[in-house]
Amino acid sequence: MHSLEGWGIDRGAIISILGNRSAAQRKLIREAYAQTYKEDLLKALEKGLSGDFERIVLLWTLDPAERDASFANEITRKKNGSYYVIMEIACARTSDELLLARKAYLNRFNKSLEEDLACHTTGDFRKLLVPLVTAYRYEGGEVNMGLAKSEAKILHEKISKKAFSAEELTSILSTRSKAQINATLNCYNDQFGNSINKDLRSKENEEYLALLRATIKCLKCPEKYFEKVLRLSMKGIGTDEETLTRVVVTRADVDMKRIKEEYYKRNSVTLEDAIKGDTSFDYAKMLLTLIGHENN
Amino acid sequence: MHSLEGWGIDRGAIISILGNRSAAQRKLIREAYAQTYKEDLLKALEKGLSGDFERIVLLWTLDPAERDASFANEITRKKNGSYYVIMEIACARTSDELLLARKAYLNRFNKSLEEDLACHTTGDFRKLLVPLVTAYRYEGGEVNMGLAKSEAKILHEKISKKAFSAEELTSILSTRSKAQINATLNCYNDQFGNSINKDLRSKENEEYLALLRATIKCLKCPEKYFEKVLRLSMKGIGTDEETLTRVVVTRADVDMKRIKEEYYKRNSVTLEDAIKGDTSFDYAKMLLTLIGHENN
Repeated sequence: MHSLEGWGIDRGAIISILGNRSAAQRKLIREAYAQTYKEDLLKALEKGLSGDFERIVLLWTLDPAERDASFANEITRKKNGSYYVIMEIACARTSDELLLARKAYLNRFNKSLEEDLACHTTGDFRKLLVPLVTAYRYEGGEVNMGLAKSEAKILHEKISKKAFSAEELTSILSTRSKAQINATLNCYNDQFGNSINKDLRSKENEEYLALLRATIKCLKCPEKYFEKVLRLSMKGIGTDEETLTRVVVTRADVDMKRIKEEYYKRNSVTLEDAIKGDTSFDYAKMLLTLIGHENN
Repeated sequence: MHSLEGWGIDRGAIISILGNRSAAQRKLIREAYAQTYKEDLLKALEKGLSGDFERIVLLWTLDPAERDASFANEITRKKNGSYYVIMEIACARTSDELLLARKAYLNRFNKSLEEDLACHTTGDFRKLLVPLVTAYRYEGGEVNMGLAKSEAKILHEKISKKAFSAEELTSILSTRSKAQINATLNCYNDQFGNSINKDLRSKENEEYLALLRATIKCLKCPEKYFEKVLRLSMKGIGTDEETLTRVVVTRADVDMKRIKEEYYKRNSVTLEDAIKGDTSFDYAKMLLTLIGHENN
């Protein structure tokens, strides 16, 4: 790779070189670039690019833990940031990835993620989000069916009383393994005749309940959750590029294949056709490269 | 080191070899022993030793994170376990040591520490302990004095209303850096004329309040906290060997020097003399070796 300085940036080269590399390879490229040109690749990209293309290239080039730290910090600094971003970091990463994101946050901002989050949120949102981001879940598949049954009952009791942020409920969602939560949600279905998310509706507190339902969906079936986020980001006139970029960048090397399957099932259009219809130029090319269709 | 098998154990050698080694050195000894004799050193020690001496040797030989995991699990399995042990792990370790202890817990017990703790505790105890064990605090010395003042006020408001487990209070104690908490506690003193622990008294809920005061003391000044725990473990007739062992083993290579200073200041007796008066034989020798007086 040539130095980006003084050449005019070859955006096609950036797409094909960075877009097709794993996180470990991107890290090596960044190190090699810094050694050869005495400049951080990210800084060079920042100088030479702009707009949605700049944002997606920078986010993709960042180390995943640093990227999550940076996403989270955007939210804890904003007035109306979307807590969905924080919830995704808490629920759609492995336990160790979440720890690495918390470490990156601490190293970069000299505060802990949960500290900033606790300050930034109040009420139900805080009661749900702080335990979620501090979780370190067991990741094995073993499930305790007796526990699943009894916790399904606890969830039902709390929900019947509209205690949607009761500690018993947030504690189950934030400490149990994903396999165990899945079993509990299945028991809920079996014992009470419908899915838990049907019961998480009420005229009050709609915003919190939407986040709670999203949390459950993201824990139970991340590819369906992300399919929906992608769908909404491209719905109607105008595109929510920030969201589209976030989902593509964070899921590209995790579960994009399954997300694409879900997307096609739900929309009868492939994700790549949807992206082609909603975006253009280099930004579109980078998105398509990351979802695995670099030749389109 | 000879194999312990078949020789009759040389307890003096165990004291002088293991007692004078750092955690990293103990780890190497354990690895070398396993390679040479095809047996875990811990298992060999377990077979050959008994009583308080066995317990202290085993706990000392364990990797610190495994040791904490094992302490914590003893508590989450017991009916009347002491939550002080869990609080110490949460408050008197570095942020990374606490994470390692949580990882060791997960690896060994296939559940997360906070999961077992949330199940095992209720009410105020849960509201305080779960956030404490999931903390990952900033460890730098930077302090925000404006924040310290405003949070001292929040603490005072909650305490005046006897809301001793209010989220605002537990959130400050579990997310702020120790330096920041220290500043907040000093502001509390300045603004309200007495230390916070003076105000944390009430006829109801005495057991929880005692834990809360201990938590604050342990965060603010661990050597004073541990001085008191040691003092109480040797008070009156009979010794609480379990507690004495725990404090000596976990603080020996951390802050034992300062604990000994505090001990002498408070009791006008050196810690070594107190230990000699309360314990005997190899157990006493091991304690004295670990607190740094191997020649007594």
